[in-house]
Amino acid sequence: MTDIKALIKSRADKTNAALEGYLAALDKGSGDYRALVDAMCYAALGGGKRVRPFLVYAFCAAYGGDEDAATAYACAIELIHSYSLVHDDLPCMDNDDMRRGRPSTHKAFGEACALLAGDALLTYAFEVASSSGRTTAEQNAAAVLTLSRFAGPLGMAGGQALDLALSGRAEGYEGLLRIQSLKTGALFRASCRLGVIAAGGTDMAAADAYAENVGIAFQICDDLLEGEDEADKANGRVTALTFLSREEAREKALYHTNKAIDALPPGSSDELAAFARLLAGREY
Amino acid sequence: MTDIKALIKSRADKTNAALEGYLAALDKGSGDYRALVDAMCYAALGGGKRVRPFLVYAFCAAYGGDEDAATAYACAIELIHSYSLVHDDLPCMDNDDMRRGRPSTHKAFGEACALLAGDALLTYAFEVASSSGRTTAEQNAAAVLTLSRFAGPLGMAGGQALDLALSGRAEGYEGLLRIQSLKTGALFRASCRLGVIAAGGTDMAAADAYAENVGIAFQICDDLLEGEDEADKANGRVTALTFLSREEAREKALYHTNKAIDALPPGSSDELAAFARLLAGREY
Repeated sequence: MTDIKALIKSRADKTNAALEGYLAALDKGSGDYRALVDAMCYAALGGGKRVRPFLVYAFCAAYGGDEDAATAYACAIELIHSYSLVHDDLPCMDNDDMRRGRPSTHKAFGEACALLAGDALLTYAFEVASSSGRTTAEQNAAAVLTLSRFAGPLGMAGGQALDLALSGRAEGYEGLLRIQSLKTGALFRASCRLGVIAAGGTDMAAADAYAENVGIAFQICDDLLEGEDEADKANGRVTALTFLSREEAREKALYHTNKAIDALPPGSSDELAAFARLLAGREY
Repeated sequence: MTDIKALIKSRADKTNAALEGYLAALDKGSGDYRALVDAMCYAALGGGKRVRPFLVYAFCAAYGGDEDAATAYACAIELIHSYSLVHDDLPCMDNDDMRRGRPSTHKAFGEACALLAGDALLTYAFEVASSSGRTTAEQNAAAVLTLSRFAGPLGMAGGQALDLALSGRAEGYEGLLRIQSLKTGALFRASCRLGVIAAGGTDMAAADAYAENVGIAFQICDDLLEGEDEADKANGRVTALTFLSREEAREKALYHTNKAIDALPPGSSDELAAFARLLAGREY
């Protein structure tokens, strides 16, 4: 049986080391705009479970690729995830003062610097993906297209805009699923696809089905974990628990976890199944 | 002699038509997050001289390329320019209520929507560049690398951070040049390089030298045109005229215009020379 927690830890370590390397490369010209690079490092290196990089690595391995070929793409998706958190926390968006137990980036560096750091993280993600030397130009162009499509106006950015337009008033559980499928599901899908691309694959059916179902289960479990959050209740924030009992939510999470596992190609190693179970249980 | 004004007009028309097509492709899934796509269109299609797309087309032609191969890259650089204006105008940055004689994007659509529209324009630029069917995957990957490097933390975003850190107190004319070389020069350089890439070229020496000098001349002429702007004076905004007399500024603009023209490869058509002279005179 896969020691999934050890594998998650080792891939998170690998991601962090690579991200540090990419961000250190920016020190060269920085000088008196040091604050921008500092804010980028603060946002990208300040913890985080590295769920998306894990998916990139795992799908690369599942499709027979060399995991090291996936590192640039794993870092690129994490840079995009980091940018989205920085911009999400800004006063005009969620106005969150805290993130992962520390002041959010704009609280630590000021609003203008945080805005620019988010822009720079997003932009740098494409530099990292397009210049990967472990993959071909065809793979890198496909990776950039995947990142931009799933992070862009018809993906994550669109989901945020939809959430904003509905100002939290999702129309039923299906409406909530639609927002979440864009806001968080899109980057999950991109992660799994990037792994397939890094391995030289082209069939995205398993990646899409796994990502969609894992994303839903992940989100429900987030809602279950944070279900007692008084701030959410006070804000009237809509979660799965607005529409489902805790029992129903747990059942749905289990259903989607199983669906994700069923989508995996036969013969693939058990790490993606173990990861899906762990994400849904969220024990780590 | 090239009818440079007619050429500028026809290339701006071509850019606008292609941008409209790219943005119309987003209508598909939009539905109730219509506001995001509307804000993107407002920002990207609301006028603008299309200077950067002109440079992409002109360098593509100068290197023997088919101009239509340059359209995707021309649109990508303009989407990035548009995003930078939207984010620059935000209250935490320059706090500009007006842009090109209309309310700025956040005044028209609200701050959160403008933030997301800027993010989405930036992200979409990479989708447009990476999926161009008129160029190879190698060219598209090189184009993405060029766009991200010159728009990112060591390019335009870095220049904005530097400007912010110095809060307008540039250290002398050389210091001002350094900020401007990043803030506006970087996208000029990217534009010229994108043209070379679209034509299948690899030698960037002429593109870099032309872009740098045209960028400086362009900026000085901007400062000369807006030199009497009372708002700038009241804000204590630093321009070339903080350090140079109008006469000295005109001489410097002429000097850099000539240097840009000298950098062009022998035998190239006269449109890039005519464009440099026009930008410096800014008669159109």
